[in-house]
Amino acid sequence: MAQPVTPAGPTDPDCVFCRIVAGEVPAHVVHDGPDAVAFLDRTPLFEGHSLVVPRFHRQTLADVPASQLGAFFAVVQRLSVAVPEATGSAGSFVAMNNKVSQSVPHLHVHVVPRNRKDGLRGFFWPRRRYESEARMADVAADIRRLM
Amino acid sequence: MAQPVTPAGPTDPDCVFCRIVAGEVPAHVVHDGPDAVAFLDRTPLFEGHSLVVPRFHRQTLADVPASQLGAFFAVVQRLSVAVPEATGSAGSFVAMNNKVSQSVPHLHVHVVPRNRKDGLRGFFWPRRRYESEARMADVAADIRRLM
Repeated sequence: MAQPVTPAGPTDPDCVFCRIVAGEVPAHVVHDGPDAVAFLDRTPLFEGHSLVVPRFHRQTLADVPASQLGAFFAVVQRLSVAVPEATGSAGSFVAMNNKVSQSVPHLHVHVVPRNRKDGLRGFFWPRRRYESEARMADVAADIRRLM
Repeated sequence: MAQPVTPAGPTDPDCVFCRIVAGEVPAHVVHDGPDAVAFLDRTPLFEGHSLVVPRFHRQTLADVPASQLGAFFAVVQRLSVAVPEATGSAGSFVAMNNKVSQSVPHLHVHVVPRNRKDGLRGFFWPRRRYESEARMADVAADIRRLM
């Protein structure tokens, strides 16, 4: 008998995204595969705004087994083309929140169609500068040490 | 002789990110591997804000060969842990702009440390609603057809 391509993983009966994957909560599904399920966000930034979730309950990006990242992001990649194409948009914004500002504790990657002058600012948030090159070098060293 | 893990790809001598990868433009590099290079953003949202770029010149997420997605996002995944840990932050925001609002036409994934009440809104942009379930079903069908 053929082995499943993706090993099974945990599900959480109280998680709304697990329930969408299981077909227990209705959603406008745009992709349903062994690694990921995608569906329309109900309060979109623009029509076509989709969410891609791992089929199993993984809270954040860090919780997806490394061996499954390729298959998961292949679905995100395909949606980053299909969503703009279906909505006649020029580009896409692809984003995820891990822990902070994460409304549902099941990883969901937003794929949002974008157009020039669509009212969303390129990078919407105030940028700042490091106080010095030395400070920047220190921060980089701290991160490198953890990689 | 050992074969290289990742096949070679294009570089663009006029691309600032290709030049950072080549070591021709200085940057505070936090990861340098066969699939991806990561370095600090010079105008961060918060200290530690890093950019992950494919080693070769790929304009958007759609331009990364599917076989290389796993290795690329494994680096993004590791940074989504290292950046918050190095900066003492509670979570991360991971995002990329494809074509629209993309300041450099070489894919770059932002990994931004986040904390509650850090002044950035969870989803910073105005959400709207579909005018009807029927409209939502139509949009979903259009995307599904292209997946």
